[in-house]
Amino acid sequence: VILGICPDATLVDISHAIPPQDVLAGALELEAVVPYLPPHTIVVGVVDPGVGSARRAVAIEAGALHLVGPDNGLFTLASRRLGPARAVELTNRRYMREAISHTFEGRDRFAPAAAWLATGVALDEFGPAVDDLVALDLPLPTRTPAGIEGIVVRIDRFGNLITNIDAISLARLADPLCVDIGGTRIHTVSRTYADAAANTLCALVGSSERLEVAVNGGSAFGVLRVGRGTPVRVRSVASGA
Amino acid sequence: VILGICPDATLVDISHAIPPQDVLAGALELEAVVPYLPPHTIVVGVVDPGVGSARRAVAIEAGALHLVGPDNGLFTLASRRLGPARAVELTNRRYMREAISHTFEGRDRFAPAAAWLATGVALDEFGPAVDDLVALDLPLPTRTPAGIEGIVVRIDRFGNLITNIDAISLARLADPLCVDIGGTRIHTVSRTYADAAANTLCALVGSSERLEVAVNGGSAFGVLRVGRGTPVRVRSVASGA
Amino acid sequence: VILGICPDATLVDISHAIPPQDVLAGALELEAVVPYLPPHTIVVGVVDPGVGSARRAVAIEAGALHLVGPDNGLFTLASRRLGPARAVELTNRRYMREAISHTFEGRDRFAPAAAWLATGVALDEFGPAVDDLVALDLPLPTRTPAGIEGIVVRIDRFGNLITNIDAISLARLADPLCVDIGGTRIHTVSRTYADAAANTLCALVGSSERLEVAVNGGSAFGVLRVGRGTPVRVRSVASGA
Repeated sequence: VILGICPDATLVDISHAIPPQDVLAGALELEAVVPYLPPHTIVVGVVDPGVGSARRAVAIEAGALHLVGPDNGLFTLASRRLGPARAVELTNRRYMREAISHTFEGRDRFAPAAAWLATGVALDEFGPAVDDLVALDLPLPTRTPAGIEGIVVRIDRFGNLITNIDAISLARLADPLCVDIGGTRIHTVSRTYADAAANTLCALVGSSERLEVAVNGGSAFGVLRVGRGTPVRVRSVASGA
Repeated sequence: VILGICPDATLVDISHAIPPQDVLAGALELEAVVPYLPPHTIVVGVVDPGVGSARRAVAIEAGALHLVGPDNGLFTLASRRLGPARAVELTNRRYMREAISHTFEGRDRFAPAAAWLATGVALDEFGPAVDDLVALDLPLPTRTPAGIEGIVVRIDRFGNLITNIDAISLARLADPLCVDIGGTRIHTVSRTYADAAANTLCALVGSSERLEVAVNGGSAFGVLRVGRGTPVRVRSVASGA
Repeated sequence: VILGICPDATLVDISHAIPPQDVLAGALELEAVVPYLPPHTIVVGVVDPGVGSARRAVAIEAGALHLVGPDNGLFTLASRRLGPARAVELTNRRYMREAISHTFEGRDRFAPAAAWLATGVALDEFGPAVDDLVALDLPLPTRTPAGIEGIVVRIDRFGNLITNIDAISLARLADPLCVDIGGTRIHTVSRTYADAAANTLCALVGSSERLEVAVNGGSAFGVLRVGRGTPVRVRSVASGA
């Protein structure tokens, strides 16, 4: 659909492996990716359990990028990473397919909008400004007397357990740190997987700048069998708490 | 292989997730996709359980597209959507790789043919005309006194159960409709997933213009655990039958 | 990341389905693919269990291609197929991202190096020559009085069991041949899947020029349930041994 409108577009697949209806997983994937995209990239995101309902379709200009898709929080985290943003609702039928499926707006509404943006159509042409984008409900970690408490928010294909604890918050705690998850204590925060003994649980800051629990050469999910939402507690050992 | 012959080709992956040897699933995927491809697109399809046997390799010109792959019914549905078609067998060795694997003609025969088509070689150069293409054996739905009876033909990655009942046949029935599948009755045909209560079975016309059974926010396959071939009966409630 | 440095690059995904940390599977995939890539292709390979450790990052010039990734044996087989090779370590920080993740050098070190190579930067600019590349530890098949003995080295998505027995070694044995695996004897080596009876075990030389055990229309893994490392014995029936 995109190449039919903008034949010179360069298409790159970010992921086709987001679990069905999992807006949070999609939001975290986009957050991890957008800092590395070239200026003027247009991102189409289709994790869209509300397709066909009254939920809005939007295009967001954030930093030097555009984000196109459903207004369901999918772009909340990416948009925060990119900086100041403004959004419009996709209402101008000129930039949609004539017949719009009630079950696949990715094809009939988002892809055409992205393609028209790529050809140079101005954001304001697509529809009215939106200043109340739906925000993703991602729980924030909380400070505790001795450290930070968060949760597992994503399990990646390597079985790494990615938390909502960001690298900046973590850096504020006095070393050494220990991490508790699923009844197990990890006695240090490593720099990389290979710093831990083989097949041993470790904790580290992953490539998306969040604390994750991993196994060097294996799968932390396979070892701990914990799911999304599992509490993760980081404690500054020096705190004595 | 394609870029080695036609460096300017734009490659787009349609799917690498068709189950092994599942010609029907591939045919349905292509049927769903081809109406949206730009003119002059060349589609390579490789679901090819008969690779290396006497089954023919073909190139089909249908509407403004070309379809290249095995002559096993993979293109039957796509070709019907696209309109008048003519086909040739790929016999001209000039447009194949010199050594042809008996287990991977996608690489050695189909991809080169597609690339040479892209460079402008005329269809008739590839080999003799074929007027007896193998047709996919897709069961058609049957009219019943009260409605239509079909079967599940595909289960997608969302767990939606896609049937062989097309939107046009469905539109001929007098509303309201009900749908029976796997011992369960669905009391209406919805416009979209979100029109049904959350986590509830619903029936609707999906993006490939076929009736499908779905669960809003979940998986119909997960709920019903029925397989391909399961009967699906649509009944016009007003018929009294 | 690549398009940010080299906007004209043509990106093609080879595979995103290599099992986590499985360097051997990645090496076999690359071996199978590289003979078919156009000259001047730059291959980025990221199967990298030692990411963040002292393992080197390298760029290899082999035949008309470049291979970029970790120095862990991932490129051993591909490089052998391509012919004479020379390598450098990626140490020049000018051709990396400024901040390098300890868990994802694919993004911060390999992709930038590949992109800079694509823009024409000479291999020697990236760092010092390496003449002791880590070699993959792939067991070689052994000659026996009656034939060859090897092992299963890979199970593909079709359930084909791919061995370390190469086509050239196999061609040296006097026909007819039989193949023993997992307590089952296969009484011939076929030319293609379709030469065997439907749903029957067969042995043949697959598209990567190695002996594989397959099931026509099914999965050899599903039938035999054997894993990587399983012995495979090919015997020349005429040998009488």
